[in-house]
Amino acid sequence: MSDSSPGTVDLLGVLAYAELTAFLRLAEDAALLAPTLNDRAALGDVAAAEYGHFRVLRDRLASLGVDPEEAMAPFVEAIDAWHAQTRPKDWHEALIKAYVGVGIAGDFYREAARNTTASISALVDEVLAGESRAEFAVERVRAALDADPRLCGRLALWARRMVGEALSQGQRLAAVRPQLAALLVGEEGENLAEIGRMFARLTEEHGKRMAALGLTPGP
Amino acid sequence: MSDSSPGTVDLLGVLAYAELTAFLRLAEDAALLAPTLNDRAALGDVAAAEYGHFRVLRDRLASLGVDPEEAMAPFVEAIDAWHAQTRPKDWHEALIKAYVGVGIAGDFYREAARNTTASISALVDEVLAGESRAEFAVERVRAALDADPRLCGRLALWARRMVGEALSQGQRLAAVRPQLAALLVGEEGENLAEIGRMFARLTEEHGKRMAALGLTPGP
Repeated sequence: MSDSSPGTVDLLGVLAYAELTAFLRLAEDAALLAPTLNDRAALGDVAAAEYGHFRVLRDRLASLGVDPEEAMAPFVEAIDAWHAQTRPKDWHEALIKAYVGVGIAGDFYREAARNTTASISALVDEVLAGESRAEFAVERVRAALDADPRLCGRLALWARRMVGEALSQGQRLAAVRPQLAALLVGEEGENLAEIGRMFARLTEEHGKRMAALGLTPGP
Repeated sequence: MSDSSPGTVDLLGVLAYAELTAFLRLAEDAALLAPTLNDRAALGDVAAAEYGHFRVLRDRLASLGVDPEEAMAPFVEAIDAWHAQTRPKDWHEALIKAYVGVGIAGDFYREAARNTTASISALVDEVLAGESRAEFAVERVRAALDADPRLCGRLALWARRMVGEALSQGQRLAAVRPQLAALLVGEEGENLAEIGRMFARLTEEHGKRMAALGLTPGP
């Protein structure tokens, strides 16, 4: 496998479009929903970091001789659909989206990067290393839950919806981009045990984020 | 005059809020109006650079012992009003807003920075140095005008509206923030000739941008 194999170009393309879109959507959420200017700046900080990641990925695509626009195009519909289904209605939903959404996406990219070349894997690690900026959301959400524990049910449901929509869009993508899917789960039917372990890892990481937020599963 | 004099804090505050807001609005325009993903990324690049400037200004305010939120608060209404009056309806309007809007704002800040301390003046220069990212708009607008010269009248009017709204909001601000106004024009009535020269410089710079875009004044 080379850096410019179809699966790897797909990985860089989906990651680039996800980062570009996350940047623009987080900026929109910051502008519309932040209750204070400091909050707006904090979510803006997450958004601007996503833009920096996009630039790294775009430059790598270009250096591989791939048009970034062409590489991103196959993923526009699925990622836009995910954002349309997870448009936050208030500041707490925006915080959870930033933290949980950025986290789920990062877990998927890490899984895919395991099965690619060392140089692409290092690039993905570099891009994902700055994702801790979204950690400020944890403190804000926990403070809100302390002040009003009744928020917990609604916000836990909201977080689950983001995961459900991500899985649903991920399945659509896997069907139309088999080379990308192969990076995640190997060739078709090859390794069911590995698929099971991957979902176990994704679920575990999501559970850790929910616990960090104070959003434990309901009874 | 010191770095933490009221006029200087006002200057850093208005510049910080302007950069934060430009970042968020440009990101919104990129998401909503860009015709291609490469265009979206190019305007995103301008937006992300504005965020970088915001961070420099916020950090300087904090190092002066000033709460950035408090320093920005007096300017929220005027800057939000300017954006509400200059919401682009299509991609060409968005490009012109990026280029002309960023340019006008930069000219004002340079004028104000002349009359402050050397360290603040250097900071403002540093923040404004990266504004050339908006230059890509020139090429795009000129190509659009070549393809359809009838666009010229509407887009020239649009650019004039942005200047008019900027002057109108600037006057409102000068009335309520006399220390900031004093940075621009000296103490009240002190130096009418200097005020005249300043407006001549601002007009000249705006004229250069209009000419660069191919938007020459109508007959």
